[in-house]
Parts: sequence; structure tokens; C-alpha cells
Amino acid sequence: MSMKLPRGTQDILPGNSEKWQYIEENLKDLCNRYNYKEIRTPLFEHTELFQRGVGDTTDIVQKEMYTFEDRGGRSLTLRPEGTASVVRSFVENKLFGLPNQPTKLFYIGPMFRYERPQQGRTRQFVQFGIEALGSADPGVDAEVLALAMSAYQEFGLKSLKLVINSLGDTESRESHRQALVNHFDPHREELCADCQVRLDKNPLRVLDCKKDRNHPAMATAPSILEHLNEYSRNYFEQVKANLDTMGINYVVDKNLVRGLDYYNHTAFEIMSDAEGFGAITTLSGGGRYNGLVEEIGGPETPGIGFALSIERLLMALEAEGIELPLDDALDCYFIAIGEEAEKQALKLTYELRKSGIQVDKDYMQRKMKAQFKAADRYNAKYVLILGENELAEQKINVKNMDTGDQVQIAFENITEHMKKELAGGE
Amino acid sequence: MSMKLPRGTQDILPGNSEKWQYIEENLKDLCNRYNYKEIRTPLFEHTELFQRGVGDTTDIVQKEMYTFEDRGGRSLTLRPEGTASVVRSFVENKLFGLPNQPTKLFYIGPMFRYERPQQGRTRQFVQFGIEALGSADPGVDAEVLALAMSAYQEFGLKSLKLVINSLGDTESRESHRQALVNHFDPHREELCADCQVRLDKNPLRVLDCKKDRNHPAMATAPSILEHLNEYSRNYFEQVKANLDTMGINYVVDKNLVRGLDYYNHTAFEIMSDAEGFGAITTLSGGGRYNGLVEEIGGPETPGIGFALSIERLLMALEAEGIELPLDDALDCYFIAIGEEAEKQALKLTYELRKSGIQVDKDYMQRKMKAQFKAADRYNAKYVLILGENELAEQKINVKNMDTGDQVQIAFENITEHMKKELAGGE
Repeated sequence: MSMKLPRGTQDILPGNSEKWQYIEENLKDLCNRYNYKEIRTPLFEHTELFQRGVGDTTDIVQKEMYTFEDRGGRSLTLRPEGTASVVRSFVENKLFGLPNQPTKLFYIGPMFRYERPQQGRTRQFVQFGIEALGSADPGVDAEVLALAMSAYQEFGLKSLKLVINSLGDTESRESHRQALVNHFDPHREELCADCQVRLDKNPLRVLDCKKDRNHPAMATAPSILEHLNEYSRNYFEQVKANLDTMGINYVVDKNLVRGLDYYNHTAFEIMSDAEGFGAITTLSGGGRYNGLVEEIGGPETPGIGFALSIERLLMALEAEGIELPLDDALDCYFIAIGEEAEKQALKLTYELRKSGIQVDKDYMQRKMKAQFKAADRYNAKYVLILGENELAEQKINVKNMDTGDQVQIAFENITEHMKKELAGGE
Repeated sequence: MSMKLPRGTQDILPGNSEKWQYIEENLKDLCNRYNYKEIRTPLFEHTELFQRGVGDTTDIVQKEMYTFEDRGGRSLTLRPEGTASVVRSFVENKLFGLPNQPTKLFYIGPMFRYERPQQGRTRQFVQFGIEALGSADPGVDAEVLALAMSAYQEFGLKSLKLVINSLGDTESRESHRQALVNHFDPHREELCADCQVRLDKNPLRVLDCKKDRNHPAMATAPSILEHLNEYSRNYFEQVKANLDTMGINYVVDKNLVRGLDYYNHTAFEIMSDAEGFGAITTLSGGGRYNGLVEEIGGPETPGIGFALSIERLLMALEAEGIELPLDDALDCYFIAIGEEAEKQALKLTYELRKSGIQVDKDYMQRKMKAQFKAADRYNAKYVLILGENELAEQKINVKNMDTGDQVQIAFENITEHMKKELAGGE
């Protein structure tokens, strides 16, 4: 048993890892175009960071963290999400003091949550996310939403729905919070144990409860949109106007609440209604968190971010039947027959690879016929053959596997020849 | 305190993360040319995997692992190295049964060791490694060594030394082991406590001891090379002949021993004698491990691998004063003046980015002059200016920051124009 994969995790093997590489490279390119720069924080942090930065009342902190003591007695936790770490780093490295503001960052890497494993939900998963820290311009909100949607659209996904809401500023939230308490308090005993706690600590999260979602009081609960003050209402209007200008479609859902404690103003989710999913499915989400930097010990700084899981992105691609344009063909397979030819093959393969060409060869002492079969399995574009005759002439027989054409090329010209062939053939 | 980075870890920030991206992309490209495919295993495994796969007597297992229980009571350990996990996955996923052998894999990602933090040694570090499983052809050894050296040489490093040795097969090792016990036993009491244990459990590792390295018995200890049987001697000769054929320089060091228990036959290290290091420094190493797959529960399968830490590769680049060829210029900075221009800027920026062009703009309500300064800080190649006059004409003033040339381009042509400019300007 102990030589097996830990429960809830996965191996990503060749044939599949190429998809991950493709997605990650394209997401990095997307960030580059938007001028978001990569930040890498450690995979574990002091536990208190997540208690404060994600929020004590969240399921993540209460039930899902991998927390342990290191050999020095520190309580560490494998990061369950990316924002708290990025904000910690922003504060600790005083990035708020740099002249280029907002600070636009992206991250991509593993996160850890101890959840019940299910389709598309693993205990280690890869999150890609962005954070824009230092600007309260509603244009940044539009930029983040545009990038988030593009992160799906650029892979060809179409069945997407952008759902937005405003959670307002502190004053608006306080007014809404009081209204929620007034509304749910008469039903307190009918709600689940978690919600009874939430009602005191963070009543907004009652709206997010999976157990109580069908309680009649849910449908009639006061909406935050009715409690937005002028600044918050105006801010939300500007975000929507920006999206309209950019031609980005969205719907407003006044019940949209994010599971983390630190959100305010713009909150959003990206959903898929692809038939393959069976039902509408949340792919990812994000929003503004203007109080978080202060919470982590930094100066008052507005922020907004977004994160998606690559696992869910892959599920969405599958649900829409989208094949990524991956090239699984090998440039060259080198077939050598005989001891001396084998030696030359090692040397020439080495030189071809050094000059940028992809080559593989046999290491299983296969006979010529079996080596040709191997070349087929690798989907080789060219087979380079070095037998006794070729060796005597110091030439290589180059076979184009697509056309069947063969040419003899001298050892010293093989690199240049293959470079030209491969450049022309693509 | 708890809002700080955990001791022994680091944040990789913009300005530095680009180096990591560049190195990782190039290492992936190197693997692609050699036809090694990416495998991703979880960052934690059952603890027993490392006890068996790395070896109970190693410092890693005895002193340096991050081990913890998950909420289900399993003993898990953050991976301290990559090979054990790759071999576990090879066995569990029955990759040995696929037609394409050897199975050539690479990995790149974080590893964790609880060590005293020092320059170039962090508790979380990034390892890049390859494994070739399924072939006992000395050509594979040469291929792995060639790839390992190229992983440094292709970044321009020159002060490199490839040191190789053979640890022989089981019979040769047993003969050597007995000779080592006979040699060191009279000095048992003079050796450190660890070495006294090693003498019984794994006497080869006595040669690797940092405490006892100056004991007189070390210099006269029997060498494995004197104990190689014919097969092992012949194997080593072929590996050396292959390296000679390929023109790869190396030196044989009969005292080279690897710190992990499972190595046999070819063992190697790559060292740097760059002046910047002060003394000759080990950068990385690898070797054959023909017994490991069986140890992890798979069929008898030969294997060979290699791993390097990116942190040390970066140190080597610094020691040799090598600058990576990174482009830190921004393609375009969009300057808009006035409310309506600002709206258009959001829209046009979005469209330029969608068509593959890198653009940034202001989100800090800066005045025109300050926006030009921002464009300078971002090292913008082009500034796109949209003021009142341009807006009236539905045109953008495009300024080439290198030549100072300005042209007016209609809104609808800006994407095509910038594509051409940027393609020509590079």
C-alpha cells in the first residue's frame, strides 16, 4: 500500500503532461501580454498567514489544510490557495514602494486541500492566478475580468458565462450584514450548526451554505445590491460600463458570494454550461479584496485577483470536446546497424541535438526491422539510417517518412541538411 | 513573525522570476531534443517510499525530511528528491509494459529538505532531473551524461568538470564492501559515531563522511575500481569509450561515492572550478540504480538518472559572470488623456492583447507627463498616445521610443500596424 500514490493525488504522465505544458505556456504568454509578472512563493507558509489571510471561518481553514510542525517546532501549512502568500510577499518585500504601480503578478503552481477526492477535485491541484495590487481604478477590475475570460477563450472554450456582483465597501457590507442578521435571526434554530456560527461571525457566508440553500428564507434574503452606498454603487456601474465598452458579456447575480472572507466590491465567477458537464458548473472566480493587505500587516492597499484550477480547465476542454493542437511527432529517429555504426550514431545524435534538432535512437539492441517499428511508434518525421554501406561512404540515408523520399547526406552535412528539412517541412 | 517567509525558503520576485522561466524553458527544450518526456508526481508521498527508495541510512531520511500525518492518519513526506517518486509512478502505472523502451522521463519542481539554510541551499529548492528506465546499454549512460553537461553548457557555463566512477554491480560491490570492512575495522573506535553505524550497514558511505575525511585510513582505503568484476569493468570501459567518441571530457575519480544507497555502475558528478566560487564546487550528480525498481516493487529494470538544483545552476552562472539574454522591454505603453480617451484605451488595449501584442496602460490616474515616465520605466518600445485631438480624428499617435518617429494610425488599423512594427523591429 505505501508504494502507491497518496489518496486524492495524481501522476501526470507523458501523453498527458504535454497538455499541461501547453496550457501553462499559453497562460504565461497571456500574462505577458497583459504585463503581469511571475511571482513564486514557498509551497508552505506559517499557519497563521492562512488563518488571517483566508479567514478563520472558512471551510478551507477549518477543515481542509495540511498543517504540520517542522523539526524546529514551527506550525507550517501547505498553501491551500495563492492570494495570501502573494500578499504576504508583497508586504514583506515592500513591493508597494516600487514606482510601477499597480503591482501586477501571476503565479502558477500546486495548492493543497484535504477534501473528499472526486472528479476534477484532487488534494493537490494546480492553480493559476493573478493579483493586481495598488489601484482602485475600475479599469483594473475590467482588465482582470478580461484576462480571466481570455484564459478560457484562448483555448477555444465557448460555453462560458461571466457572472458578476458587487459586495460593496465596508459601510455597505455593514449595512447588509445587519439586514442579514435581522432577516435570518428568526430562523436561527432552523439553520445548520455552521450557519448558526456564521450568523454571528460572517452572516454573508450563510448565503453560500450548501446545506441550507433550499431554506425558504434564502430566497427572500436581502441583497447586497440594495445596500450599496453611493461610492460602491458608482464603482460597480463603472466596472459594468468598462465591460460593455470592451464587448465582454456578463450577467449580474445579486446572490453571488465568494467563499473567502476578504472580498469586497467586485466579485465574479466564470461558469460553463457545456453539455458535457450535465449542469452549469463553476470553473473559477475572483474579486476585489481591498482590506487584505492591511490584514497581513501592510499599508492600506486596494487589490483584486483571480484564480483558476488547471484540472477544471482541462475538464471544461473535455466537456466541449476541444483537442489542444499538440505536436506528438518526433523529428528524427536514428537507426544504426553494427558496432561501428552504433558509435557514429551516438556521436551524430549528440551533434544533431546540440544544434537544436530532436532525435532519438535505439538503446535496446533491436534489429533493423524492430528499429523501424520503433520509429513508427514515435511518429518520426525522418529516419536516419546508418548501415554498413552508408558507413563505408561516410554518409547517412535520410528517409522522409511522409513522402518516402530518401537522400544520402555526408556526415559533415547532416546537421545543416536536417535543419533545412525541418524548417521547410513545418 | 508569522507573517514572514518560513525560515530557509525564498520568494522569487519579478526581475528574478524571468531567469527561472528562461532556465526552465531551455531545460524543457533540451529534454525535448533528447526525447525525454515530462512526468509530474505529487509533492508528497507515503513516507515509506523514501525510506525504501532513498535509503534508511542516508542523511536525507534520517535528518532532513518534512514528515507529517494527514487528517486521515497517513504518514506523508514532502519529497526530498525526485527519483523515488518517478520510480514509484513507473511501477504503479506499469510504464515498463509500454512498447517504447527505455522510458525516458524528466521532472522539474520543488523538493524539500530540512537543512541548515546557507548560500545556495534552501529548505525548498527546485530540482530538474531525468530518468531513463529499462535499458542497460552503456549508450544510455553516455546520453544521460551528455544531457547533464549540456544542461550547464547551453547557458554558457565553461568552468565545468565531469567526474565519473563506477560503483560496479552487486558482486563487485559485495567484494569491495568486505574489503572496506576489513580496512576500517581496526580503526572503528577512531571514526565518528555515524561512521561506526555505516561500517555495519553501508560501509561505502564511510568514504563520503565529512567528519572523518582527514582520517589517515581514508587515503589508503580500497577502491571499488580494484574490485570490479569483468562485466562491471567492461561496462565502465564502454561508457568511457562512448564519452570519448562523443568528445565529452571527463576525469575518473575512484573515490567518487554518491550519498544515496541505491546507486551501482556509473556514478558521476558535475563540478565547477569557476573563480567566483573560491573552491571547486559540486553542482549536481547522478548515476545508475539498477536495483531500485525492484526495491519499489516493480520487475527487475535497469535505470539511470541525474538531477540538478536550479538554485546552484544560478549560482554557477553568477560565479562565471554570465548574464542570461532576457528581454525586459515592454512592447507598447498606452497613454490616454481624458475620460472618453480612457474608455477607448481600455478597448484598444484589450484588442491589441488579444491579437498577441504586449501592452500596458495607466491605472493610477497619472497625468500625461507621469504616464510618459511610466512608459520609460517599463522600457516601452512604442508609446501609443490618445489625446483630445487624436480622439476627434479616431486615430492614435504611435511613437517609436527608439527612433523618436511618430505616425498617426486609425483605430481600426492599429492592431495590424503594431504587429508589423513589432515583427520588423526584432
